[in-house]
Amino acid sequence: RSKEGERGSLEKQLNGFGEKGKERSRTSLVISQAVNRSIFTSAVSPAAERIRFILGEEDDSPAPPQLFTELDELLAIDGQEMEWKETARWIKFEEKVEQGGERWSKPHVATLSLHSLFELRTCIEKGSIMLDMEASSLPQVVEMIVDNQIETGLLKSELKDKVTYTLLRKHRHQTKKSNLRSLADIGKTVSSASSPAMAHRNLTSTSLNDISDKPEKDQLKNKFMKKLPRDAEASNVLVGEVDFLESPFIAFVRLQQAVMLGALTEVPVPTRFLFILLGPKGKAKSYHEIGRAIATLMSDEVFHDIAYKAKDRQDLIAGIDEFLDEVIVLPPGEWDPAIRIEPPKSLPSSDKRKNMYSGGENLQMNGDTPHDGGHGGGGHGDCEELQRTGRFCGGLIKDIKRKAPFFASDFYDALNIQALSAILFIYLATVTNAITFGGLLGDATENMQGVLESFLGTAVAGAIFCLFAGQPLTILSSTGPVLVFERLLFNFSRDNDFDYLEFRLWIGLWSAFLCLILVATDASFLVKYFTRFTEEGFSSLISFIFIYDAFKKMIKLADHYPINSEFKVDYITHYSCACEPLDPGKTIFMETSFSLQYNTTIDWSSLTVKECLKYGGQLVGNNCEYVPDITLMSFILFFGTYTCSMALKKFKTSRYFPTTARKLISDFAIILSILIFCGIDALVGVDTPKLIVPSEFKPTSPERGWFIPPFGGNPWWVYLAAAIPALLVTILIFMDQQITAVIVNRKEHKLKKGAGYHLDLFWVAILMIICSFMGLPWYVAATVISIAHIDSLKMETETSAPGEQPKFLGVREQRVTGVIVFILTGVSVFMAPILKFIPMPVLYGVFLYMGVASLNGVQFMDRLKLLLMPLKHQPDFIYLRHVPLRRVHLFTFLQVVCLALLWILKSTVAAIIFPVMILALVAVRKAMDYLFSQHDLSFLDDVIPEKDKKKKEDEKKKKKKKGSVDSDNDDSDCPYSEKVPSIKIPMDIMEQEPFLSGSKPADSE
Amino acid sequence: RSKEGERGSLEKQLNGFGEKGKERSRTSLVISQAVNRSIFTSAVSPAAERIRFILGEEDDSPAPPQLFTELDELLAIDGQEMEWKETARWIKFEEKVEQGGERWSKPHVATLSLHSLFELRTCIEKGSIMLDMEASSLPQVVEMIVDNQIETGLLKSELKDKVTYTLLRKHRHQTKKSNLRSLADIGKTVSSASSPAMAHRNLTSTSLNDISDKPEKDQLKNKFMKKLPRDAEASNVLVGEVDFLESPFIAFVRLQQAVMLGALTEVPVPTRFLFILLGPKGKAKSYHEIGRAIATLMSDEVFHDIAYKAKDRQDLIAGIDEFLDEVIVLPPGEWDPAIRIEPPKSLPSSDKRKNMYSGGENLQMNGDTPHDGGHGGGGHGDCEELQRTGRFCGGLIKDIKRKAPFFASDFYDALNIQALSAILFIYLATVTNAITFGGLLGDATENMQGVLESFLGTAVAGAIFCLFAGQPLTILSSTGPVLVFERLLFNFSRDNDFDYLEFRLWIGLWSAFLCLILVATDASFLVKYFTRFTEEGFSSLISFIFIYDAFKKMIKLADHYPINSEFKVDYITHYSCACEPLDPGKTIFMETSFSLQYNTTIDWSSLTVKECLKYGGQLVGNNCEYVPDITLMSFILFFGTYTCSMALKKFKTSRYFPTTARKLISDFAIILSILIFCGIDALVGVDTPKLIVPSEFKPTSPERGWFIPPFGGNPWWVYLAAAIPALLVTILIFMDQQITAVIVNRKEHKLKKGAGYHLDLFWVAILMIICSFMGLPWYVAATVISIAHIDSLKMETETSAPGEQPKFLGVREQRVTGVIVFILTGVSVFMAPILKFIPMPVLYGVFLYMGVASLNGVQFMDRLKLLLMPLKHQPDFIYLRHVPLRRVHLFTFLQVVCLALLWILKSTVAAIIFPVMILALVAVRKAMDYLFSQHDLSFLDDVIPEKDKKKKEDEKKKKKKKGSVDSDNDDSDCPYSEKVPSIKIPMDIMEQEPFLSGSKPADSE
Repeated sequence: RSKEGERGSLEKQLNGFGEKGKERSRTSLVISQAVNRSIFTSAVSPAAERIRFILGEEDDSPAPPQLFTELDELLAIDGQEMEWKETARWIKFEEKVEQGGERWSKPHVATLSLHSLFELRTCIEKGSIMLDMEASSLPQVVEMIVDNQIETGLLKSELKDKVTYTLLRKHRHQTKKSNLRSLADIGKTVSSASSPAMAHRNLTSTSLNDISDKPEKDQLKNKFMKKLPRDAEASNVLVGEVDFLESPFIAFVRLQQAVMLGALTEVPVPTRFLFILLGPKGKAKSYHEIGRAIATLMSDEVFHDIAYKAKDRQDLIAGIDEFLDEVIVLPPGEWDPAIRIEPPKSLPSSDKRKNMYSGGENLQMNGDTPHDGGHGGGGHGDCEELQRTGRFCGGLIKDIKRKAPFFASDFYDALNIQALSAILFIYLATVTNAITFGGLLGDATENMQGVLESFLGTAVAGAIFCLFAGQPLTILSSTGPVLVFERLLFNFSRDNDFDYLEFRLWIGLWSAFLCLILVATDASFLVKYFTRFTEEGFSSLISFIFIYDAFKKMIKLADHYPINSEFKVDYITHYSCACEPLDPGKTIFMETSFSLQYNTTIDWSSLTVKECLKYGGQLVGNNCEYVPDITLMSFILFFGTYTCSMALKKFKTSRYFPTTARKLISDFAIILSILIFCGIDALVGVDTPKLIVPSEFKPTSPERGWFIPPFGGNPWWVYLAAAIPALLVTILIFMDQQITAVIVNRKEHKLKKGAGYHLDLFWVAILMIICSFMGLPWYVAATVISIAHIDSLKMETETSAPGEQPKFLGVREQRVTGVIVFILTGVSVFMAPILKFIPMPVLYGVFLYMGVASLNGVQFMDRLKLLLMPLKHQPDFIYLRHVPLRRVHLFTFLQVVCLALLWILKSTVAAIIFPVMILALVAVRKAMDYLFSQHDLSFLDDVIPEKDKKKKEDEKKKKKKKGSVDSDNDDSDCPYSEKVPSIKIPMDIMEQEPFLSGSKPADSE
Repeated sequence: RSKEGERGSLEKQLNGFGEKGKERSRTSLVISQAVNRSIFTSAVSPAAERIRFILGEEDDSPAPPQLFTELDELLAIDGQEMEWKETARWIKFEEKVEQGGERWSKPHVATLSLHSLFELRTCIEKGSIMLDMEASSLPQVVEMIVDNQIETGLLKSELKDKVTYTLLRKHRHQTKKSNLRSLADIGKTVSSASSPAMAHRNLTSTSLNDISDKPEKDQLKNKFMKKLPRDAEASNVLVGEVDFLESPFIAFVRLQQAVMLGALTEVPVPTRFLFILLGPKGKAKSYHEIGRAIATLMSDEVFHDIAYKAKDRQDLIAGIDEFLDEVIVLPPGEWDPAIRIEPPKSLPSSDKRKNMYSGGENLQMNGDTPHDGGHGGGGHGDCEELQRTGRFCGGLIKDIKRKAPFFASDFYDALNIQALSAILFIYLATVTNAITFGGLLGDATENMQGVLESFLGTAVAGAIFCLFAGQPLTILSSTGPVLVFERLLFNFSRDNDFDYLEFRLWIGLWSAFLCLILVATDASFLVKYFTRFTEEGFSSLISFIFIYDAFKKMIKLADHYPINSEFKVDYITHYSCACEPLDPGKTIFMETSFSLQYNTTIDWSSLTVKECLKYGGQLVGNNCEYVPDITLMSFILFFGTYTCSMALKKFKTSRYFPTTARKLISDFAIILSILIFCGIDALVGVDTPKLIVPSEFKPTSPERGWFIPPFGGNPWWVYLAAAIPALLVTILIFMDQQITAVIVNRKEHKLKKGAGYHLDLFWVAILMIICSFMGLPWYVAATVISIAHIDSLKMETETSAPGEQPKFLGVREQRVTGVIVFILTGVSVFMAPILKFIPMPVLYGVFLYMGVASLNGVQFMDRLKLLLMPLKHQPDFIYLRHVPLRRVHLFTFLQVVCLALLWILKSTVAAIIFPVMILALVAVRKAMDYLFSQHDLSFLDDVIPEKDKKKKEDEKKKKKKKGSVDSDNDDSDCPYSEKVPSIKIPMDIMEQEPFLSGSKPADSE
């Protein structure tokens, strides 16, 4: 049997080959070590040399354009003649045409077989490689290839016509949309006119290549084009089996100039590369896999560069070898190859791989990403905004200089629908806050400052701050400590017969003066001692207070509208509440005049509760103290609004509806929830407590005006003595303002226009003067609302290549949203008729949402959750990889203790020294230096956000490993002691790996 | 410079090598083609031959035991002497010791570098391979290895002592638990006594190997042991760098007998394999990677077999080559190697790979998994239960024969806590259902059949059925169509002066007779015409009815307890409701006797509503028609119960708490929700409508007894005429019963004890006779409750190897839960004092939950959701890969139309022919054969559950591809025409791939 014989002879050959190569490590030579890592040899392979040469040269030339790769296979469709049918495409990830579904698969990571890669390597070794071919049409290209093959003896000349004919067959492309699109898609785009005739079997573009060199109508109409950059080029991979060939026909072509080759490509981009593989019948599957392999290589950033710069066949082979060297291998028993792997959230930059070859750059790279953990300072300590200038007002001047160039863009950057959503959301939060604090303040100061003052103050202070401050994303508001202070101050004034408002004016002036001194002396640089520990402690505490307050208000509401739990339907006749005159004697007196008595009696029963009490009546009956429905309805609204906001916010990640619709719903989640539950409230019609906005513009108390005269009310020494409480107020203001500023300016928010700690404080001081003179409350930055403001303004990239994750780009930094919010707050006085439809429980629900949402992504909360998780279910946090769990728990425990103490403090009269206690947090953190190693602290207490650090670590790992695949046996164990000196070290030093052994790399040789 | 020189010479060598091998495809030879797939050569490689030989021989020997692989590395700990420290371990997936975290990572897929695999290959080529070594202690093993190395000249004899010393250093193992365990862990297990001294740095077991050969205390205490089977063996991988070696010291040892080598291994399992790699300083990273590579190989099922059976070095190398050939490759630019890949949900079976070598078996394998799609029959058509015997009662006898052997196990299989949860849940659902239907039935039949009859009937029929029926998982209940029929029948009887109960008795007898005929003639085989289309249509409809009814009842409740939406707190004095005498004249009459009049007046106002109406009074006042709080509270309870059930059910997949606790919570989700919301209801104290169970045991109507006399009430001809309505009832019963039975017996439930369609129907008929005589309602299988029953009894494997997914094992098939549920239902009459605390809205919430939960996983619902999803977000359903989207949508649309028609039908009086219309569904499905291709239908309308099919397809693919990696360019395009004849085909035929080309594989050569 011929087959048997063939096998036998090949076996001999193989054995012979094995004999010859036995001495030498065959395999380790075949996979060329791009950078040597072999444990048996210690030299750099020629492939690595080659790649270093290819990639290293002329770095000033423009980067090669993005490639679109299309895999076409030769198929007989409907029993017709053979045609080239598109079966897969690549920009970065693979998308394949589903077999029967006539649809594109989701983009996925192209899993290859090692085998197909090696076969591809052989193809490149054996086939025609024609670099920089000068041709302008497909027939021309095909002719040149065929001629070349005949010349080199790879093709018999009698097959020329057949090959040419095959290669010039029609190309059918997979159109993006199926004819019957999902309802969701129809909602998304205006249906493009697709006539049924043309869309026969959903395959279009059935033109012959040789007919036109211009892009086809279908090509131009293809929406996929928008995923590609303007200068993109195409690489076409054509594979297929034919019956006339006996050995494979292989060609790799790079054109001198990218040329539009008619309808060869799905999208109208010019073709630069062509890979052709025709082979004998029976191995279509292998050809397909080889086609996928070359296509995957072409979409690999490094090979892509090599393909553009390659000078000869060996360069391409070196590129394949480099690719093989970097490849990640999954064991067959642990992974099912049929699983389509979703593109990962983040990808390692290909720069690392490229830099490995292009010279010393990688060492510089090594130097510029030190882990900036370690003591205190963390992420923001070293930022330019907080450096101490040492000059008078140096920081303030720098802040102004830094922010001034952005002033114009602070306005036009707001032109986005997102801003509208943010305005509505923050407006409602601010108004609710103003009302709540106004009410409380009115209580505390016997209406010397009330709701209207709160509105006016919020509007004036907020608008001015957002217009001129260093960080206009910060939202000013009254805060808890300020409220406590006002209450104490008022009581003190009353007990000592001081004029409260005048006393307060002087305290405000002194505080403002002290704040201005802090500004002038750049005292804000102290902020850098606020580490993650302090920050998260503070913001968690504020969030807890928000959540606690929301529930407290609901419980208060329930107390105010008690439910009659004794009520039985059957006993309805027994429940009543009537107004009766208080004094029975009065009734008797009235009884004397008969008709009057009758009238009066009627009057009593028709009186409302308020009237009854006003006229001195009393409410008699077992139903008077109960209010039906309102409490329960309020709870429904409260939890409903919260749940609905949460659900709508998460809707962004659902599968339903087009991305834009989902984004819109998510952006407007809170507003939608408020509207929905206002609707439900209106529908049910229960008289729930509504938002009440003052409708007249005059001071709450008739005893005061809009200007507080600075003299006359108190003895002269009070003006000086006011400096003492002012000191406390100053600390309070400074801490409250700056911690929130630090949180707002966190690096993870990726703010581009810089912070302005000094400028912020300057304006807070100025506003304090204004507010003091007008008798309005004082304002500082409000943590939770500011975070909500930022969250509602976050930007993400629109995905470019299919499968790539959208990236968080930053926050829409502008002054418009803030300014409009506060202007709206000001004019809310005139919007009372609309606002009165909003039930308070809905707004409490929003408060609850804000409190919970601002706890999201706080590392402290993550660590708290760890306590409830069994070890094996704990998420893969970077600090868990590096810090023993008991240290993590100890850290969490200490933080919890601190917060518990602060909470207790806050609940007592000592609340006034609350801000001072925040300073104590800094001290506690400092004391932790003795309890925890710097290594542990650098992971647990650090302002660098989670993902950034993980990425950095991976990068570092990558560099260390010099590209070797690892399952993260990471050696970056001591991140804080790792400032690599940026001396240029020759490549061969890199071979020594400072892994686990304690041996350090020599700096030179 | 020496390095330069070295490199230069090596380059020359390389080039020389390249020259020699140029002619031949070097790479494609190196990677040996296990089964030839190369496009250039066409022979089977020697490696494949070898593996076929290794794996093919003596298949009767017991399968090699499971391996536990441990990677130990040589490290200096705390600046002390070197020690071997465990850094990773494998059962199936890799778990590594986190660098600083002193913890095990999560199990993950071991991503390797190609490079390390090739280096490992070289290691095996160059190192000492000692198979079947006879040794019983580690020093002995080490000595033999070292001697061997010196003998073969690989090691200088003067290094013997140093190497021996190094290899016998202490071994430190990573204990599983951190000292400070999470709260969740503490809750899970009783803390094992770990003294602080011993747990120094959390590393224990610091013994010297040479001291003891017995397992250490720590080893024995290790909880990890329970993850391993009893006969597991260990393979130890030791890698490390030392300063005294100049070339690597490599050894691969297989012991003749697995031996406990002291504290070498973390767990007390005997060691079978040892891989040792010591090398010169500076390459620890590479050694680590090679160690990981061999460990991964050892945990690979195929290599594991080869390692056990290998005769020499070449066998091992062939094993590595086979592994390399099967490996899955991820392109470096599309994947971040630092990402730990979670173990996949399902893994391809290694049998495919093994069978590829061990002869013709694979073709049999090919034959036994045909895609059983195509026309009608689907998944259950071909099952043994539904085959027509053709004999009298043949099916029934077979059913009894099939079920009898399981009768005993049907009782002891229920011994599980899960059964308790199922009993409570189903009991409450059944009681609620009995009450609802009882109430409706009482309405419809003027209490001839009422709640008590419903209770009694449910208890008797259910208990008997569960005790004796073919499928005891089915829960009997009254169903909608039966209710409609009873109503019509009662009205007809009343209008024609028939004795309703006697007439009904005769209809029941006739129906039972007809059913018994159906049983005797094996008519249940017709069930196989119920395809997924019919089944899902029916069950979706029933689920919709459940959901609709839950809401309808809530709205009815709201109507019954109207909210006073005009209520204003201030006007509370204006609301009243008083009882007044209806007739003012009466009052006047009473006024004559003075004292009596006064008494009477007082009486009127103290009367309750019921009393008032009884004594002929009237309710006067604007508050009489309103009921406060109850409606709102009911809605809170309703939605609360539903949401809570859903959330708790999902809790199983959360990260918190140990698995057992989560499973318990999830199993008891509904009971917990009911208890929670009963508690909330009791706390608020609002008088919500409660579950009312009859407390006396007597017929609801005094006009009837517990036995219906068959004669005397109606003229004689009525007894015969009853056969006509009986025909309708028979269809109704048959359809209702059998469709539910089909759904219960679905293959995806993996029932092991078989179905019993005939036996089920037999008992339904018998029960019908009993119920008819006792005047109780008729009972058939209830879809939704039966599904809930099955869901609450599902079993999953406890995970064995870390990282492996728990598998769905089947359902706890037993009779106990059902029987107890119905006994409880029966004695509920005496549990009224407890049950009366359960508010009805809570039970309606449970109904809503059941309705929604039973829609889960129904393909029809998935397809409905597709309508709302843009193409690119659609999940990767198997049918979407194969059927064009517009066909899928058309199919969904037709189904929706059918259901809409059925719904309309159901809502009218025509509801009585509802079951007949279900038959129409079968006809519609039949008609679809003309609209859809068999190919499309085989994917859309098939009883094989989703995941099974995908797996099968993958398997098939796998076989087709002969192990090549693919990204599912699946060629199983025509699943229904793919019955491969099971002729033994020689291996070389397998080379021909029937992919896309239309060429079919030759059957023989």
